[in-house]
Amino acid sequence: MKTVISIPELRAARAELPGPVGIVPTMGYLHEGHLSLARRAREECASVVTTIFVNPTQFAPEEDLDAYPRDLERDLGLLDEVGVDLVWMPTPEVIYPENFQTWVVVEDLTQVLEGASRPTHFRGVTTVVAKLFNVVQPQKAYFGQKDAQQAVVIQRMVKDLNFPVEIVVCSIVREPDGLAMSSRNAYLDPAQRQAATVLSRSLNAAKDAFQAGERGADQLRAIVMDIVNAEPLVALEYISCAHPETLLELDGSIERALLSMAVRVGKTRLIDNLVVGG
Amino acid sequence: MKTVISIPELRAARAELPGPVGIVPTMGYLHEGHLSLARRAREECASVVTTIFVNPTQFAPEEDLDAYPRDLERDLGLLDEVGVDLVWMPTPEVIYPENFQTWVVVEDLTQVLEGASRPTHFRGVTTVVAKLFNVVQPQKAYFGQKDAQQAVVIQRMVKDLNFPVEIVVCSIVREPDGLAMSSRNAYLDPAQRQAATVLSRSLNAAKDAFQAGERGADQLRAIVMDIVNAEPLVALEYISCAHPETLLELDGSIERALLSMAVRVGKTRLIDNLVVGG
Repeated sequence: MKTVISIPELRAARAELPGPVGIVPTMGYLHEGHLSLARRAREECASVVTTIFVNPTQFAPEEDLDAYPRDLERDLGLLDEVGVDLVWMPTPEVIYPENFQTWVVVEDLTQVLEGASRPTHFRGVTTVVAKLFNVVQPQKAYFGQKDAQQAVVIQRMVKDLNFPVEIVVCSIVREPDGLAMSSRNAYLDPAQRQAATVLSRSLNAAKDAFQAGERGADQLRAIVMDIVNAEPLVALEYISCAHPETLLELDGSIERALLSMAVRVGKTRLIDNLVVGG
Repeated sequence: MKTVISIPELRAARAELPGPVGIVPTMGYLHEGHLSLARRAREECASVVTTIFVNPTQFAPEEDLDAYPRDLERDLGLLDEVGVDLVWMPTPEVIYPENFQTWVVVEDLTQVLEGASRPTHFRGVTTVVAKLFNVVQPQKAYFGQKDAQQAVVIQRMVKDLNFPVEIVVCSIVREPDGLAMSSRNAYLDPAQRQAATVLSRSLNAAKDAFQAGERGADQLRAIVMDIVNAEPLVALEYISCAHPETLLELDGSIERALLSMAVRVGKTRLIDNLVVGG
């Protein structure tokens, strides 16, 4: 497994890789969710490139950029075990040189949900992903369903700007008690960690109700809300029942929906989601 | 010479072309300026792709999108003579399908000069050029120095987003009396056409003064202004003496500058520029 930092090093190493090339963009501090993406890429592509970059432009000033957990040595060991060919670990200066001033902006889809809570977040995500695509020139790119809105936004960007890249979205990987894997789970103390199971518990309760015949968007949101509100260590930021592609909130009776939510557990912000109806 | 309209047709035809591939993006109604770009591409590249697309998103609602001159048959004859391999003539629906919502935005460089007069213009330009690059995947792209700010903005976009494309900027091609070639010259009546020589006359007077030792930014701007103001059919919109890369206006004594200007001749808006000091 080769590791590179600068763009010229990356381009030289990339030129040696047989295609198709799959890319797995990450911010490091890898867990089973990331590794499931890398393993899927390993199965489907002749070469696998992973990027490790804690992208400053997708964090707001008050967010956890400086505290974001890092363990590069462990990450490289895990990627080597999966059989990744090339790891690109650029510095912020490599990605955002002096006078950087170009942004890729997806409009409507980024106004809701995570974008409403984090107004500059998706501009940072789409811009860095566009750059990764242009430098690495992969045929396939792997993202997790955990960040459901990110997956929809990136698919829209790829379609609108005609990037010659196929986006593969992989299922959420969960802890045995249902908590979706996240690098930010490392922030939780034992009581918070226990309370954080309320995300998957409440979403599953809504899914059970859907499977038992409940079709009301308000009713499904209320099921999640009631369960979260009963957990004193967790504050609900939003619960959404939205169209899985447009991300617009649904009213009345639904056939298919993305149920997604964000909460605060102490200072830690956690998200989770599931799709009901197919 | 092959012509295509849809993206699948373009991708199939592109896959057959030997590299390096050069792209010459145009809005059609071709003149010697465009053809000089196509000839340069023909000399430097194994394959040449020209696009003809009057891009609606770079026109403001009050601008001349509907009146923009078109003569596809003549354009194709001229490109065939130059030896272009492939012409892509997408419809607006091919480029901007339903729900299109992704934009490439260059920030600081687009706030001044043409961008100040035409606030959404460059967003349309950079977005369509990013799309053309992603679909055609050229190694080189040819633009005219006539649109000096456009060339600087596109070079910034390519650098910031790491497009694997080399930008080649070609000199302005002028009529025998100095008027820079432009598709919009077709709008001018004979008196306006005569008056329009004031753009190159005034810029050349400033250049002559520079070569004779004048270094004052204000003085160079004043030379242009006085000559334009003496021409009753022409109204000056701006005259700029700016840094050729940052496009910031210069003060005091200059070493090197982009002198650029926009005027109205009747309803027709014309631009011209030259670089002094290197």
